[in-house]
Amino acid sequence: MDKNFKDKLKKVNQFKVTDEIDIISLINSLKETGFNAKRLALACHIYKEMINDKECTKFFGLAGAMVPAGMQGIIHDFVKEGFIDVLVSTGANLTHDLAECLGFHHLQGDINPNNIDDANLLSEEMNRIYDVFLPNKVYEGIEDFISQLKIPDNTMSVSSFLKFLGEHLPKSSNSILRTCADKDVKIFCPAFTDSGLAMQLGFHHKNLNLNHFKDMLEMVDIAWDAKKAGVCIVGGGVPKNFIMQSLQICPNSASYAIQITMDRPEPGGLSGATLREAISWGKVNKNAKYTTLISDATIALPLIFWFLKKSKNNK
Amino acid sequence: MDKNFKDKLKKVNQFKVTDEIDIISLINSLKETGFNAKRLALACHIYKEMINDKECTKFFGLAGAMVPAGMQGIIHDFVKEGFIDVLVSTGANLTHDLAECLGFHHLQGDINPNNIDDANLLSEEMNRIYDVFLPNKVYEGIEDFISQLKIPDNTMSVSSFLKFLGEHLPKSSNSILRTCADKDVKIFCPAFTDSGLAMQLGFHHKNLNLNHFKDMLEMVDIAWDAKKAGVCIVGGGVPKNFIMQSLQICPNSASYAIQITMDRPEPGGLSGATLREAISWGKVNKNAKYTTLISDATIALPLIFWFLKKSKNNK
Amino acid sequence: MDKNFKDKLKKVNQFKVTDEIDIISLINSLKETGFNAKRLALACHIYKEMINDKECTKFFGLAGAMVPAGMQGIIHDFVKEGFIDVLVSTGANLTHDLAECLGFHHLQGDINPNNIDDANLLSEEMNRIYDVFLPNKVYEGIEDFISQLKIPDNTMSVSSFLKFLGEHLPKSSNSILRTCADKDVKIFCPAFTDSGLAMQLGFHHKNLNLNHFKDMLEMVDIAWDAKKAGVCIVGGGVPKNFIMQSLQICPNSASYAIQITMDRPEPGGLSGATLREAISWGKVNKNAKYTTLISDATIALPLIFWFLKKSKNNK
Amino acid sequence: MDKNFKDKLKKVNQFKVTDEIDIISLINSLKETGFNAKRLALACHIYKEMINDKECTKFFGLAGAMVPAGMQGIIHDFVKEGFIDVLVSTGANLTHDLAECLGFHHLQGDINPNNIDDANLLSEEMNRIYDVFLPNKVYEGIEDFISQLKIPDNTMSVSSFLKFLGEHLPKSSNSILRTCADKDVKIFCPAFTDSGLAMQLGFHHKNLNLNHFKDMLEMVDIAWDAKKAGVCIVGGGVPKNFIMQSLQICPNSASYAIQITMDRPEPGGLSGATLREAISWGKVNKNAKYTTLISDATIALPLIFWFLKKSKNNK
Repeated sequence: MDKNFKDKLKKVNQFKVTDEIDIISLINSLKETGFNAKRLALACHIYKEMINDKECTKFFGLAGAMVPAGMQGIIHDFVKEGFIDVLVSTGANLTHDLAECLGFHHLQGDINPNNIDDANLLSEEMNRIYDVFLPNKVYEGIEDFISQLKIPDNTMSVSSFLKFLGEHLPKSSNSILRTCADKDVKIFCPAFTDSGLAMQLGFHHKNLNLNHFKDMLEMVDIAWDAKKAGVCIVGGGVPKNFIMQSLQICPNSASYAIQITMDRPEPGGLSGATLREAISWGKVNKNAKYTTLISDATIALPLIFWFLKKSKNNK
Repeated sequence: MDKNFKDKLKKVNQFKVTDEIDIISLINSLKETGFNAKRLALACHIYKEMINDKECTKFFGLAGAMVPAGMQGIIHDFVKEGFIDVLVSTGANLTHDLAECLGFHHLQGDINPNNIDDANLLSEEMNRIYDVFLPNKVYEGIEDFISQLKIPDNTMSVSSFLKFLGEHLPKSSNSILRTCADKDVKIFCPAFTDSGLAMQLGFHHKNLNLNHFKDMLEMVDIAWDAKKAGVCIVGGGVPKNFIMQSLQICPNSASYAIQITMDRPEPGGLSGATLREAISWGKVNKNAKYTTLISDATIALPLIFWFLKKSKNNK
Repeated sequence: MDKNFKDKLKKVNQFKVTDEIDIISLINSLKETGFNAKRLALACHIYKEMINDKECTKFFGLAGAMVPAGMQGIIHDFVKEGFIDVLVSTGANLTHDLAECLGFHHLQGDINPNNIDDANLLSEEMNRIYDVFLPNKVYEGIEDFISQLKIPDNTMSVSSFLKFLGEHLPKSSNSILRTCADKDVKIFCPAFTDSGLAMQLGFHHKNLNLNHFKDMLEMVDIAWDAKKAGVCIVGGGVPKNFIMQSLQICPNSASYAIQITMDRPEPGGLSGATLREAISWGKVNKNAKYTTLISDATIALPLIFWFLKKSKNNK
Repeated sequence: MDKNFKDKLKKVNQFKVTDEIDIISLINSLKETGFNAKRLALACHIYKEMINDKECTKFFGLAGAMVPAGMQGIIHDFVKEGFIDVLVSTGANLTHDLAECLGFHHLQGDINPNNIDDANLLSEEMNRIYDVFLPNKVYEGIEDFISQLKIPDNTMSVSSFLKFLGEHLPKSSNSILRTCADKDVKIFCPAFTDSGLAMQLGFHHKNLNLNHFKDMLEMVDIAWDAKKAGVCIVGGGVPKNFIMQSLQICPNSASYAIQITMDRPEPGGLSGATLREAISWGKVNKNAKYTTLISDATIALPLIFWFLKKSKNNK
């Protein structure tokens, strides 16, 4: 333990929410409190530093049903504002992004998920994601679109395919796939065949063999070339590990690291593993600024984005 | 399941955080999303309705180390703004409120709680509450204050004692005890002897026998007389059960109910029990507006208060 | 970090469940694994040491709906076997123990709690505790019993009253109240008025003012006199804090400590706080053997008891 | 809600752990209790039915660091005893299985993970997985082995490669890869390139392009051909989704389903999603026997296996 421990201590800020408060002053107040309020503030400040550090390559891992829960526009704007350099996503978020981009919608309502009869939903052809619903027919729409794609190269990498896909999507003010294609932000999806999107591809494009190893090696190259690395992990899972395994074998481990998760560390799974543990692996630098925020990402992401946007405007 | 289920469904709002956004428009957007973002918005709206419903008695259950984590001013302002009619608290929050009110402070810093050596803290006489610290000497200050109190009645109820205590505290812009005394908001503390405050009382006031049954019966009377009841539960525990057991035996169960907790329902403990379960007991009305928000209260409470304050100002 | 860290490391035991395995060999195997399997084994071994240490006073904190979930007989046998010297309980567990002892029953069945309609349960007068049910009429039975008690002293301590209550209960092979009375194991219940049992007392015995401060001081005396202290905390809450606050001010903090909880530490509440944190407070000794087991207690308690019983028989 | 609800209710079993108890009678007792004790018993009984149902294809999803935590032998024996027909795994568990099979070891000791200095571990080249440790040099051993493999077909499916790999491993009484190869149990690994094993492959076998789509289509074929499907999900993640997406599009959704997880449902991620939700998707049959067990799998798996093995022996 740091010998100067006591000198570092300051009063907990028993702050007020006044009429003049805005997102920046609120976050600054929370930074002097405790528990996850403080961690939320640390996440905001660390991300802001990542953005202001011109040498930093910003990796963003996206797991959890963020698009179904209405976070598509937020993720889109993280990309649009230049807050993400490399996106690593589950296949599901990309499938749901495609659905919204093609004009379909996720549904919600004044409904308690515990009052739902899932057998009824089945007969109504309505798939449930906790308290969000996705009609079966959306998958038919995805199938129509996918079946007509003319894929130029059956052995391209997944990320190349996702760029090709994004370029062929309609203009959209929300689509993650489209925006990443437009802004030339790479999307990696290591478990791509674990998605509705990939299933339709597999059924309709029989000779497809997207080269997953090419993605893996490209990701290592990007991590290797990064002067500094910053990571923001939403939810954990394969996107977290894929970013971390690349940093592990590179000269520069992460100088900035944020994780937003509801999973817990004690059962040993990666999604709940603390960022501190990642130091032992050489994934996160021992001098890194990092915080593990225990919060539903649907609450944290809009607040963090609001803080970052306002900070950018204030400059 | 509701037969008109499908008619109630609306698009998930893939909202944007624009330059014009404020806390009210953000919350209104989140209300049309999913998961805990939606529940946070429901909590804001349900609390607002509770406040606007002039017939509603607003019960507030406070558990968890909220004062140490910097939420003292927020709770104080909930009382000051008239958002709480009856407060039920753990003894710990009152002890910590007393400490701050007497000029002592909780401490925090740029410290990862996992890097702390608790044996060192012990030798430094620094008590740890996750990432917040409380020097031992604070308890000596509390002892000095408590030992000199002239308690008028050894068998008064705990809530009467807490009012007496609040009245004898220095003026404070943050103290929950003082504000409740000033505003005549009753504080119940069913597990009072489970607190540092009560220990000092017991050591220095040998004949004290505060009448806990009087509190219990008064609480039932208040619940019985409420035309309508609204509850906001922070963290669960004894404060939750004490409010709920009173509503259970009264003609009017809660018409509005909010719980903010990080505990989970499956292991069967009350702190994690859903508000829906409370319907079976007659604690929450079957037609009540209610939501169980899974979030650290240190994140949720400032946001809810900000929404309520701004909504009040906008009127 | 310990300099001899590496020397302490041994192979993880990739154990087998053979035909010859029994609870003792299973637990011994798990002790050489990781995560909560290892902690379960540590809990077993630490409790065994507590029992074998003749100087150790064994404090047991009981929170969570353990009696409704079928753990009454297990807790009873912990007492009967001499594994508990002082029991600190929620009022709810005592109320449910009383119900079973008077011949009433908690109910369960082949039922998914998520398919339950709580409004229907309300009209059926069936109270729900996750997937366990308690008919309203049980409370009438409790009322009949309580209303006829001749309480000898209105200002006795709660623990004295609970002993009196236990002595007036029918013989039972499962009742915690009865067994503690028979075995002269003290039961403390700091939040006693937060229970159905106390509500009936309050309604039918108007002058009752059980002296909660007397309990608090007695508990401190017991902790003070303990040559060594061992604690086993089920679930946290008031029972945990009541034991810990007593140890905090005594010369001997806990030499052995076990906590079984599903709550998490990051939001700062006591139920999720690690036992390591308790070292900073002087509640747990810095050289103590301790473990925080993240498990539903309904799974852990029968296994720990089975291990302890079998170990005792093997001697 | 079922109209015969009340008729289905039985007394909660306030069971005893007697001298005669064994794993089968304990589990049978727990089946009549509540919370996760009951769910553990349901998991045991549902798995037993799956095994006894000769028409049932048993899918097993493996996520979380099960091999590092000492569960390698248990998973191995699930395969050996014929309790698994199709295994879907994370890449990490296969990498760790390979390490153990090549004679390397995961390490553990009498160590509190919260007292660990991860920066020290880094300099000791010791990677941490909560309270389990893996020396860096293990990866060098894996590299040596992988670099010398003569892979017969660069575009084989991942599962074909894993069979090839298993066949070239030394004999082992614990290895999952080897046993699956011997018993002809298919292993799918949809996020294969997200693993240390795949990274070594990618570095040393430049033209490798294992066909992930072939795996995906084979998995659909197996699910399509299953007369009945049973699933056991450990931890969730990609393995859960990969099994579920295949069942979703097949005529027969799962008739039996078990999930063991510590993740929670409210934040909407798949690992915490209830099996009940899967009914709406047609992944789990509306008449299925299913249970979602909230427990660290390191505790649950040995108990379930012990129950299944003993039940098999008793026949």
